[in-house]
Amino acid sequence: MEFFFRPKGIAVIGATPSRQKGGNIIVSNLKTGYSGPVYPVNPRYKEIEGFTCYPSVADVPDPVDLAIVFVAAHMVPRVIADCAGRHIPGVMIQSAGFAETGAAGEALQQQTQAIAEKTGIRLWGPNCMGLVDTHLRFVFSTVTPAIWDTGLPSGNVSLIAQSGMLAGAFLIDLMSHGTMGIAKVCSIGNKMDVDENDLLEWLIHDPDTAAIGLYLESLTDCRRFMALCRSTSKPVVILNGGKTAGGAAAAQSHTASLSAGGALVAGAMAQAGVVTADGFYQLTDFSRTLGMYAHLPPRTGNRVAVLTYTGAAGIVSADIMDRHGLELSQFSDTTLKTLQTVFPEWMPPANPVDMWPGILLNGSQKTYETAMQAVCGDPGVEAVVVHCFAGGFSLEVDLKRIAETAGKTGKPLFCWISGERDRVYAFQKSAQQLGIPVFREVMRAVECMGVLLNRPQVMDTDTASGATANGRRLKQDPRLGVLTSETGVLDESVSKQVLEACGIPVVEEKPVTSLEEARQAAADFGYPLVAKGMAPGVSHKTESNLVHLGIASEQDLDTAVTALQQAMKGPGRILVQKQIPGKIELVAGVVRDPRLGPCVMCGLGGVFAEALNDTVFGVAPLTLTDALAMIDRLKCRPMLEGYRGNDPVDKNALGRILVTLGDLGCAYPDIQEIDINPLIIHKGTPVAVDALVVLARKGESE
Amino acid sequence: MEFFFRPKGIAVIGATPSRQKGGNIIVSNLKTGYSGPVYPVNPRYKEIEGFTCYPSVADVPDPVDLAIVFVAAHMVPRVIADCAGRHIPGVMIQSAGFAETGAAGEALQQQTQAIAEKTGIRLWGPNCMGLVDTHLRFVFSTVTPAIWDTGLPSGNVSLIAQSGMLAGAFLIDLMSHGTMGIAKVCSIGNKMDVDENDLLEWLIHDPDTAAIGLYLESLTDCRRFMALCRSTSKPVVILNGGKTAGGAAAAQSHTASLSAGGALVAGAMAQAGVVTADGFYQLTDFSRTLGMYAHLPPRTGNRVAVLTYTGAAGIVSADIMDRHGLELSQFSDTTLKTLQTVFPEWMPPANPVDMWPGILLNGSQKTYETAMQAVCGDPGVEAVVVHCFAGGFSLEVDLKRIAETAGKTGKPLFCWISGERDRVYAFQKSAQQLGIPVFREVMRAVECMGVLLNRPQVMDTDTASGATANGRRLKQDPRLGVLTSETGVLDESVSKQVLEACGIPVVEEKPVTSLEEARQAAADFGYPLVAKGMAPGVSHKTESNLVHLGIASEQDLDTAVTALQQAMKGPGRILVQKQIPGKIELVAGVVRDPRLGPCVMCGLGGVFAEALNDTVFGVAPLTLTDALAMIDRLKCRPMLEGYRGNDPVDKNALGRILVTLGDLGCAYPDIQEIDINPLIIHKGTPVAVDALVVLARKGESE
Repeated sequence: MEFFFRPKGIAVIGATPSRQKGGNIIVSNLKTGYSGPVYPVNPRYKEIEGFTCYPSVADVPDPVDLAIVFVAAHMVPRVIADCAGRHIPGVMIQSAGFAETGAAGEALQQQTQAIAEKTGIRLWGPNCMGLVDTHLRFVFSTVTPAIWDTGLPSGNVSLIAQSGMLAGAFLIDLMSHGTMGIAKVCSIGNKMDVDENDLLEWLIHDPDTAAIGLYLESLTDCRRFMALCRSTSKPVVILNGGKTAGGAAAAQSHTASLSAGGALVAGAMAQAGVVTADGFYQLTDFSRTLGMYAHLPPRTGNRVAVLTYTGAAGIVSADIMDRHGLELSQFSDTTLKTLQTVFPEWMPPANPVDMWPGILLNGSQKTYETAMQAVCGDPGVEAVVVHCFAGGFSLEVDLKRIAETAGKTGKPLFCWISGERDRVYAFQKSAQQLGIPVFREVMRAVECMGVLLNRPQVMDTDTASGATANGRRLKQDPRLGVLTSETGVLDESVSKQVLEACGIPVVEEKPVTSLEEARQAAADFGYPLVAKGMAPGVSHKTESNLVHLGIASEQDLDTAVTALQQAMKGPGRILVQKQIPGKIELVAGVVRDPRLGPCVMCGLGGVFAEALNDTVFGVAPLTLTDALAMIDRLKCRPMLEGYRGNDPVDKNALGRILVTLGDLGCAYPDIQEIDINPLIIHKGTPVAVDALVVLARKGESE
Repeated sequence: MEFFFRPKGIAVIGATPSRQKGGNIIVSNLKTGYSGPVYPVNPRYKEIEGFTCYPSVADVPDPVDLAIVFVAAHMVPRVIADCAGRHIPGVMIQSAGFAETGAAGEALQQQTQAIAEKTGIRLWGPNCMGLVDTHLRFVFSTVTPAIWDTGLPSGNVSLIAQSGMLAGAFLIDLMSHGTMGIAKVCSIGNKMDVDENDLLEWLIHDPDTAAIGLYLESLTDCRRFMALCRSTSKPVVILNGGKTAGGAAAAQSHTASLSAGGALVAGAMAQAGVVTADGFYQLTDFSRTLGMYAHLPPRTGNRVAVLTYTGAAGIVSADIMDRHGLELSQFSDTTLKTLQTVFPEWMPPANPVDMWPGILLNGSQKTYETAMQAVCGDPGVEAVVVHCFAGGFSLEVDLKRIAETAGKTGKPLFCWISGERDRVYAFQKSAQQLGIPVFREVMRAVECMGVLLNRPQVMDTDTASGATANGRRLKQDPRLGVLTSETGVLDESVSKQVLEACGIPVVEEKPVTSLEEARQAAADFGYPLVAKGMAPGVSHKTESNLVHLGIASEQDLDTAVTALQQAMKGPGRILVQKQIPGKIELVAGVVRDPRLGPCVMCGLGGVFAEALNDTVFGVAPLTLTDALAMIDRLKCRPMLEGYRGNDPVDKNALGRILVTLGDLGCAYPDIQEIDINPLIIHKGTPVAVDALVVLARKGESE
């Protein structure tokens, strides 16, 4: 990918002398920033923007690593063939008019793609805005030259955007508002060849990039994306457009790509340690925060000191912190004593530190600095948020000294700034230079602090995970034979035998065909019992009156068996089970997603399942750590941790079930679905009470 | 209150010629804006800022309606006595050093308050920043004169803030950033006399105020606040600091006031139709949106058209809308045809409208205007959000024409703006003037749109509600006698008789004292049964092994009765109940809050109660509408609306139970608590299965 990021020479195919047109803007942007040779290509001109213009790419002299193409879509396949013939390694197609424009464009895109596949030339785009590199001052893009007026402030966050306009427009916004510095912006458009994973891999090894933010409408290869994210300690933040039904419908008519199922992708991202955002500024705010503090170890703690010039903002900060898993530090006696030196006697210092009375006595600078030193030196403080005001009230602070104090103790510092517009801007810019994330809203500051302090470090240290992909963790057991010999829906009894063979606890049960056998099973298990009719092809037993619960006596059993035999009106066995009492009903299972492959699901079951929508997903195979993290993402988590004196759930046992389910999904490609519902928590241990395994019908498997 | 807002003359007690000091800033601010007579008071000077200075307030000539006091706290009581002697109707005490500074200040505050109570003089403050009125250009405040540099843009939102610094600092921020216009800002500090309700009442009748935003750390009289909010159609938005445990702790050390319980206050606010915010900008953004569209009828619909220059932002908008109860409009054929006229042929128009391809063909202005006219004329569109870019890409729009198009059809318009900093600022200011709410973040724009479109109109049209305060809706029934004759905890059977007497459905049950009586009850009710031991003084029966569930036969009953008789080891009756099957367990009850009085609670019960924290509150008495709105606020609401083919819950029946509980709380001041747990939903109808009524012990009632 080097030729895209550090090309030794660039051809611009479709260059033009007409100002304001894309084919001119590309050349102008190169002229301003890029120092290598530039070769405009257009048979109609001899010279463009001071560069010699060539009739065809074949005529361009060496060196040329990169061609930027901005010609009408129908001309693109021919141009790409020329580039391949000229042995140019990489092309950025910035023209639009491909898959995003319907069938004709789609055909053109496939035609172009075919050339790349045949020749090995790498294609970036089409329908994109290319690349901006602020460190090297490379602008390989039709982005408006207004970008140069904003100053192109460099930073350590690189962005990848599956949207041309967004990348260009947003860049100008971010840069001109002094909000953040950028390392690179990569606009990937329809990603016919080069995709987010190619770029992510490159950026992971880019020394200028400390954090990566992505706006994507589709994940080309989610498993590769996850593996890349888990291979690095660099933070990755994603805004995945089309998460909801409305958004997904909107995404279909844009950049010609479908968004994957929201809940599955959310699970995959969490599993890979990726931070997710819901809006554009949230994406960039999370990214710049993580970029600024990329050197800090993860999860150092969540206890925060708040320094404010107004008690009200302190209170509101504390409220918002509460919602983002952050706590107010309890200050040490030393800290309290130091704070007292700048406060009036009547005021006992507390956290949040309301500095206003101190400022009235000792001035702003002394009060802020004393407070900063005190809280940064406190071992009970893991991060500091400072509220600043620019625009009167004698509230000036020496930001540089504050930054130094925080820097010396290695504690991440966050600033909230408000005040008069120009002074706020100046404050933002100097904070930016000093490496302090500064925010215009307390809410966002706290949100970003939460992301930084609570972000788990997910790295692939579990070397076993690779081995499990082929199910080696599963024991050999003849009961698993059905998974390769059968097709379609396995009945409840057979399904549970499969689970039991893998070590998943299942309810005591026996399939019977007569009343005598049923009575024998009852004698073995003891009452209360459940009896279910296993009519072939019926998977919704409750709706078909094939389930009898709470059988408390032999008389009940006789009635139930007779009723079931009548209800089935044909072949079918009866399953006699021990009735398991348990207040918590979960569900767990495997789904095979067309893009993600086998995934594991876990959620709250029973009457709450649909209403409370508490389901989490993971991509198989899972490590036990992955599985435990999934469980921790359930909304009903507090319920699992023991409540009202009930036993807490054995999370390791539950986690092992999820791991096993994932292993099954990986080892047996015929498994389309496994559904354990309910998985009842009985005395703290999960037990599969009902389950179905669905296998591919002939010719359906992967 | 007129004398605070339109004083005929103002005395400034504690005026000083020293620049930068509060006593000078107040006079300077008056000089710049106020045109009535100004009388500085200070025995040490003859003249201040060009005004004659008087040694004492007694020497000040008429007219003088208002005294602004900025002297050391210990001098305040004497000064207030002087003002009362001089028959000045209102005083703003801007000095600090009162209840917020501990015991000595608290004493000073009480001393001052006593003077007010004796003389009837109205006191605003202390520890506040007074009043800013942008329409009259009155600045009765120590707020830095930098405020004049910002231009003091007037608008129709008035703010009330229980924080001096916040009000002053935030005002400068809002005004200088072109974010919003303001009508009045009232900083009320410790509110020793004039409180948020006095100001709210005044602002409700203020023609310059269309919406009111409040930052409060305490509600002086929540019931009066609610009544005021319900008396007006003007939108009220509140940011209530100290909602969480951390925030509440922080609030205690600030402005000397305690915050009320978060969930109770949240319920009260919802009941009064008050919009709640979690951050400062959210407060002002909600307020300005509601102010700009205060003329629109509430809840006109939630179907939105999105016009964007970048498909990505359209998708993300749709995702965020989904989370805020907003839908994408389905465009009519006419709309689609009109849109098609500016789009290339290959692009079928959809919502969100990605205008970029149209802009390339027809230019920005024509495309935006055509699209605006099309969507505004569509009956399926109830609001429009337009994405704009300022800073290149030929994306200029004629905002005035867009505003006119929206205005003509009466459809609320929202703008998202990004781009180059100065151009964005200019855009914000003109949008502000045109009455279009404009936002820097898509998220906030959508959030505000959700608040506007989904806000219920809560007004006191139910004239019955007053009458119910004394319980007139409750039937006379001898079983209610215990509520006045007894004290302490009533046993389960008596508690349920009280509920039954009020028409609340309770489980069939009978208290018995012998096995024979128990068998007789069983014969009446039929199995399965529940038997409970009612040992006096034991309220946690389950933990004391006093509950036997699932009694299915006479044999079971005998065993249970014997076990209960042994467990009680003394006096105590046994309650034999019909066992009610039901998958949904709710809880409902009455709590008597020291500040709010009798409140009604409803929530999800059973194992999920604590874990999922799904409880809502209302302030009694409730109208049926209030009660139904409470039910709709439950997270488990989808569960109550019928799921998996189960019967939906009879919401009116549930609502009537809540109304009755509230009436009981209002009619019987001895009721400290009523706890129905569980309230089982049986065939769609709620039935009280266990309940306790707790009465005040002697001398404990209100």
